Parts: sequence; structure tokens; C-alpha cells
Amino acid sequence: MRYLLTVSYDGTNYGGWQRQKNTITVQERMEDALNAVFHQNIKTEAASRTDAGVHALGQRVCFSLADCKIPIYKIPLVLNGYLPDDITVTAAEPVDDCFSPRFQALEKIYQYNIWHDKYPNPLIRHNSVFFPYYLDIVSMKQAAKAFEGKHDFAAFRAAGSSALTTVREIYECGVLENGSMITIKVRGSGFLYNMVRIIAGTIIEAGQGKTPAEAIPEIIRSRDRTRAGRTMPPHGLTLIEIKY
Amino acid sequence: MRYLLTVSYDGTNYGGWQRQKNTITVQERMEDALNAVFHQNIKTEAASRTDAGVHALGQRVCFSLADCKIPIYKIPLVLNGYLPDDITVTAAEPVDDCFSPRFQALEKIYQYNIWHDKYPNPLIRHNSVFFPYYLDIVSMKQAAKAFEGKHDFAAFRAAGSSALTTVREIYECGVLENGSMITIKVRGSGFLYNMVRIIAGTIIEAGQGKTPAEAIPEIIRSRDRTRAGRTMPPHGLTLIEIKY
Repeated sequence: MRYLLTVSYDGTNYGGWQRQKNTITVQERMEDALNAVFHQNIKTEAASRTDAGVHALGQRVCFSLADCKIPIYKIPLVLNGYLPDDITVTAAEPVDDCFSPRFQALEKIYQYNIWHDKYPNPLIRHNSVFFPYYLDIVSMKQAAKAFEGKHDFAAFRAAGSSALTTVREIYECGVLENGSMITIKVRGSGFLYNMVRIIAGTIIEAGQGKTPAEAIPEIIRSRDRTRAGRTMPPHGLTLIEIKY
Repeated sequence: MRYLLTVSYDGTNYGGWQRQKNTITVQERMEDALNAVFHQNIKTEAASRTDAGVHALGQRVCFSLADCKIPIYKIPLVLNGYLPDDITVTAAEPVDDCFSPRFQALEKIYQYNIWHDKYPNPLIRHNSVFFPYYLDIVSMKQAAKAFEGKHDFAAFRAAGSSALTTVREIYECGVLENGSMITIKVRGSGFLYNMVRIIAGTIIEAGQGKTPAEAIPEIIRSRDRTRAGRTMPPHGLTLIEIKY
């Protein structure tokens, strides 16, 4: 049997999702919990390999098991008993034996949080970036809209990444303001390495008046990473949802 | 000169506001920063002596200084340079030499956050209590309303506390629902020790059907601590604002 979990985590204290040698990762903690519960050497596959410091409210994680003695609705509760407080399984469902949470994802939703105020807010400091400089929300909204559609996003991926194609479709890109919190919400078919953080950096530069919204189609066409905005820090980013 | 600061903090890693021998407190960190900036042995007085684990977005803190060489609008920035990430000064203003932030407070606003969902949310775990059991929001709202007005709140203070009078006025007590987050907001003239956490516990018992809203006036009249609900944990509580 193959299972698909929905997982939330605070990425602050992890070296990202993917297992690594010299840092503790969410994957390692998940597999430790699975192994403790099922007494097997279980390997997991995640929908999105989130970077160090990036958070998730709707990561999806798959694993296979010859024989599961626990009723499926109890799997989240049992796993949570073995997971630390900063990782929580919120759902478990059966999937086909060949299901890939990564390659079968139809849509991913990310949010980038900006605390736009004169002073930081200690209560949300791990969850948002503090930005005390001028930002024009209308320009940010216009810039966000310019990312919507099917484009070659080569200009918006980290140098050295090696996806087979750099074409992605963004279904929706918007900017929400709630008091001092500005949230960039991006919904798309999938994202290149660091793409959401570079889009966030470009939208912020639009808000500062450095990059007008009208310049964004040309930056996309250029396929030139140096023309896009800076990569924003990881802790402002949260993987919200993945749809199949 | 006497100054009034507005201070935010994440109370997670502190033994509360008030200086103590065997634990690090927010007051100790504040006074360390003040002493580092002004090279004097400065004593502070806070509006509210928040408990261990309780947070603040609008704590008020006073200190006196013979001679301040820093322009007042720069005081928050300079102090923040000496404060850890979980404490932030957001304003500084001059006050009368005999001003007491504690005794001259006219109104205090607190919020109590409840994550009401089947599973915890790791991103807000330090900022809310996780409550996975049934809650009826309408009953909670009715219970909250029953606390409004001027009452003797002796039934809603921690045993052993020694305020001169137990009469307080609650101007507003309401319950807000935003997705899985339930927030109890209390606005009043002042609060007894643990009063907001006991009111929150009583409102939650109303939501569980254990204490009907109609019973609350009689519980207040009883002046009997054992009749009120349990004291909710500190980490759900945030001091939002203090008015003078």
C-alpha cells in the first residue's frame, strides 16, 4: 500500500525538506517517526523539496508499506506522537502504488509574508521578513499580475538549477495587505528552484519603484537571471497547498 | 526626564516580565539594553507584569534619565540594537516625572488565541493553545458578553493574589472566529492576577457546554475561584494595548 500524508512544519530549525548529511532535515524526522511506528526502513518522497528555513502548511509526503496494521484515519495521530512539535501530520490517504506526489502535482500554492512596518514584530519573526522601507502596494499588485500566464521563467530560477524545462504556468499571483502584513500569494503548475522567492524579490522592487510592472514581461522574455529581483530570504515563504 | 516605551515581545523564552533570580526575564533584558545605551543603572517599571510565556505587542515600560543625549525618536532604534530578536521597542515618548505606567493605565486590551482544529499548527504553536475538542462559538460569544460591566472578579483571580480591591470593569469581551483560529478579546480597566486566563478557561467551558452563559453572573457573584473555569496556559495570551 502507498500512502499520501499532508504535513505542516515550522522550517526554522531544519536544513529544509531533503535529507542531508550535516544538518537535521524534515525528511529525516519524518522517516524516523515512520520507522518508529512501522518498524520498517521507510523512504519518503515529498511533493516539494522546500529549502532550509521555508515553512509548510500543506506539504505532501508519500511512503509505501507492505502491511499497515493501523487504521488509516489514525496514522496522523500516531505519527504526531513520534514527531517534534514543529512538524505535524494533518491527513493520510491511500494512493496508487505508482503515485508520485512530486510529478503528479497539478497545482502548488505558496505565500510570501512581509512585515512592512517601522519596527519588527517579534511574534511573527520566524514567519515573515521585516521590511521597513517604502513600498507602493498598487505597484506591487500590478507587478504580481504581470507574472500570471504560461511563461519561460528562466530569469526567475537560481543559477545552476537543472530543470528539464523552464516553462511554468502561474494561474494567479496577487498581493494582499492586512494591517502591516503584506502577503504575496502565488498559485501555479509548479515552480523552479527559488522561483517564488525571486518573484517576491521582483514584486518588492516594483513596490520600491525600482522595477516598473511594465518592465516585467521584458524581464521574463530576457531569460536573464540578473534582470530579475533578488532572492528573498527563506523564512518568509510558506508552502500552503498542493493539488492533484 | 522620564520616558514611556512601547514594547513587543515573544514571551516563549522568558520567565515573564518581572526580574527574578533564577530565570531570564524581559525586564532584565530591557534594563541590560538601557544600561548599555545610557551607561547608567536604569530601573524600569512596566504597565503589566506579564507571566512566564505570555506575549506582548503593546507593553508599556517607563524609565527615568538625568540627561538623554539621544533624540527621542531614535531611542527605539538604538535600544533594538542591544535587544535580542524576541524583544522590540516600537515607540518612545516623554512623560511626567511622576508618571506610573502601571497605576495610570486607563484601559488594557488582551487577546487569547485558541487553535481549534483536529491537528496542531506548528507555525503558531508558541502563540496559541491547541484545542481539538468540540466548541460551540455561539455559546462562547454569549459567555463572553456576560463578563462585560463592573463586577467583583474575586472568583477570577489566582488563589493567593493580593490586590487591594477585586472590582474591575470589563468594557468589552468578545469572541472572534477566523478559520480554525478562535480569539477571545478582552478590554477592561485592569485585570487581577491570571484573570484573563481564567475568563478564557470559563468561556471555553461554555463552548464545551459545561458552563452555560446564564450561569456566569452567579459564578461572578459567588466570589468563589472553584466555580470559575480553569486557568488557560500562558502562551495563548498576548497583551495587545494599554491606553492612558
